[in-house]
Amino acid sequence: MPSDTGPIDHFWAVIPAGGAGTRLWPLSRSSVPKFLHDLTGTGRTLLQGTLDRLAPLAAERVVVVTGRPHRGAVSDQLPEVDADWVLAEPSPRDSMAAIGLAAALLERHDPDAVMGSFAADHVIADPDVFAASVRVAAEVARDDWLVTLGIEPAFPSSAFGYIHLGEELAGHGGATSVREFVEKPSVRTASEYLATGRYRWNAGMFIVRPTVLLDLLGRWHPEFAADLRAIAADRSRLEELWPGLPKIALDHAVAEPAADAGRVVCVPSAFRWEDIGDFDSLASLVGADAEGAAVLGDASLVRTVDSTGLVVPAAGRVVAVVGLDDVVVIDTPDALLVTTRARAQDVKQVVAELKESGRSELT
Amino acid sequence: MPSDTGPIDHFWAVIPAGGAGTRLWPLSRSSVPKFLHDLTGTGRTLLQGTLDRLAPLAAERVVVVTGRPHRGAVSDQLPEVDADWVLAEPSPRDSMAAIGLAAALLERHDPDAVMGSFAADHVIADPDVFAASVRVAAEVARDDWLVTLGIEPAFPSSAFGYIHLGEELAGHGGATSVREFVEKPSVRTASEYLATGRYRWNAGMFIVRPTVLLDLLGRWHPEFAADLRAIAADRSRLEELWPGLPKIALDHAVAEPAADAGRVVCVPSAFRWEDIGDFDSLASLVGADAEGAAVLGDASLVRTVDSTGLVVPAAGRVVAVVGLDDVVVIDTPDALLVTTRARAQDVKQVVAELKESGRSELT
Repeated sequence: MPSDTGPIDHFWAVIPAGGAGTRLWPLSRSSVPKFLHDLTGTGRTLLQGTLDRLAPLAAERVVVVTGRPHRGAVSDQLPEVDADWVLAEPSPRDSMAAIGLAAALLERHDPDAVMGSFAADHVIADPDVFAASVRVAAEVARDDWLVTLGIEPAFPSSAFGYIHLGEELAGHGGATSVREFVEKPSVRTASEYLATGRYRWNAGMFIVRPTVLLDLLGRWHPEFAADLRAIAADRSRLEELWPGLPKIALDHAVAEPAADAGRVVCVPSAFRWEDIGDFDSLASLVGADAEGAAVLGDASLVRTVDSTGLVVPAAGRVVAVVGLDDVVVIDTPDALLVTTRARAQDVKQVVAELKESGRSELT
Repeated sequence: MPSDTGPIDHFWAVIPAGGAGTRLWPLSRSSVPKFLHDLTGTGRTLLQGTLDRLAPLAAERVVVVTGRPHRGAVSDQLPEVDADWVLAEPSPRDSMAAIGLAAALLERHDPDAVMGSFAADHVIADPDVFAASVRVAAEVARDDWLVTLGIEPAFPSSAFGYIHLGEELAGHGGATSVREFVEKPSVRTASEYLATGRYRWNAGMFIVRPTVLLDLLGRWHPEFAADLRAIAADRSRLEELWPGLPKIALDHAVAEPAADAGRVVCVPSAFRWEDIGDFDSLASLVGADAEGAAVLGDASLVRTVDSTGLVVPAAGRVVAVVGLDDVVVIDTPDALLVTTRARAQDVKQVVAELKESGRSELT
């Protein structure tokens, strides 16, 4: 039996830290993407929160893969992480390349490694429940499965993909085979999923032996896997090979075909998980569903009258809101956003327009 | 026949420049009240616009009455006005004291004076129509009437008082007696008023000989009139007598009882007039009733998606508004207001709360 406390033997936490978080503009910018921000008001950034969650499981075995422009900021925020393991992508090539690079390096570095990949911008309210799930997943992964954590849906969300569970796996309490990964459904379809009890949210959390991941990749994208292993064998080839890697998510490159091939297992988990995709989900996270407006930051700066929603007074100025429900007010030193929770997704239109009109420095 | 161009003989323009404009916070502050701001995007403040309108009629005969803290700013904005005629009230005592002080001084200074009193924070779109009305009013006033301009109502407003017209005055084309001044009515009552054709908006514009005004005041408030004349006779008595003057509007102190006594005449006028009382009226003024959001200031700073209302980017930052109708966003360097046109009146609650909570420096 594995221990249920302390680091997991040969477990490596891989943290892909990418994505600009366009829908969280003007808090999140391409120069300072969302994982570098404290969006939870805890005093720790999302990236630091991710490390805090994983360090008890991985000890010093942490790999971060990030864009070259953010490598310095990542190392500054994570002084505990060996700078050699803060990997800088020459350019953004989606999650398969990022996680695959870590897998290829770990395959050579630690043949007994089990890696778990967890995005840098998620929020998990129950770290102990999360940790227990990862421990189970790591054990299952040692048997050469591609293991994913399947999160108990809190509501019929149309914003997430789902994992369709199959049969229970013999010998691993609670783990089940994965029938398939399904794309973001309509709310109605999501409700039907929830009624069956056989669907889980797909949070993109994968636990797997590096060799298993790369071998699976090699089945459907042999050149991709070979290039990653070539980079790991000779890191001077990174600049040469990286630009040719396909821009594809790990889900599409490996997880979906591997599920079809019967190679994926799910560990159903009950921790509360938030993917802060936009200001609507951020508002939920910081308590805007209660009465009144939620404030992320210095609440003494905010005055509200008959208003609900989210106010972020990040410019140090007084912010007054009168008579608006579900409003979102994001006040930063050089840009102000006013929208509603329902329209939070459309913030990316503003970012696109700013880029087009030559104000990229604000995006 | 008086000339219809050039200054009016012995006509004195009196501009009471008071009131904090609390409902226009955070644009308007007690330290910089609304008449000191360019709220029309013309490059001239409301006060300067008022002078621009009156200077062709009064030439150098202009009196401004303002609060002591604003005397310097008023003189700075109006270098054309003789500093001796920028009168500083020791404390705010409402419009009767302010206008009465000017009247008492003018009574001694120019026995042939006709004065016209026009608030510093009104906006008039048709200065020529306005000027023509003032010329008629000044002629009527020489016959010792208290003359008011009655503005053709543009819609059944419940925000203004009305003038109920009586019989036409012999010998003065268009001028009529005033039956009574009526308080702000309901919209329904206002609609009934408009249907009769015998009601005009009361914009508080009075044209009168100073002696007539003070004598009328003396009928109902003899001590008030005597104190004003005592100050004019010996200005060193200002500090002593001013604090004892009643805080009352000229409308209540003189115009209403004088109408009952048959002493008031109205010159019906058709100029477009705006009293920018709150952000709803400011939004109308700057064109927010058209499609999209109106911007007061540098429109290149504003990005809107599916939004209408008013945006004032007075802090020089980019302001993005997504998916809000009739919204009001007032962005200043130290305070931000987000509200709706319908709730614009309630901004004063924020100002009151800021004062209570020790943030008076922002109000």
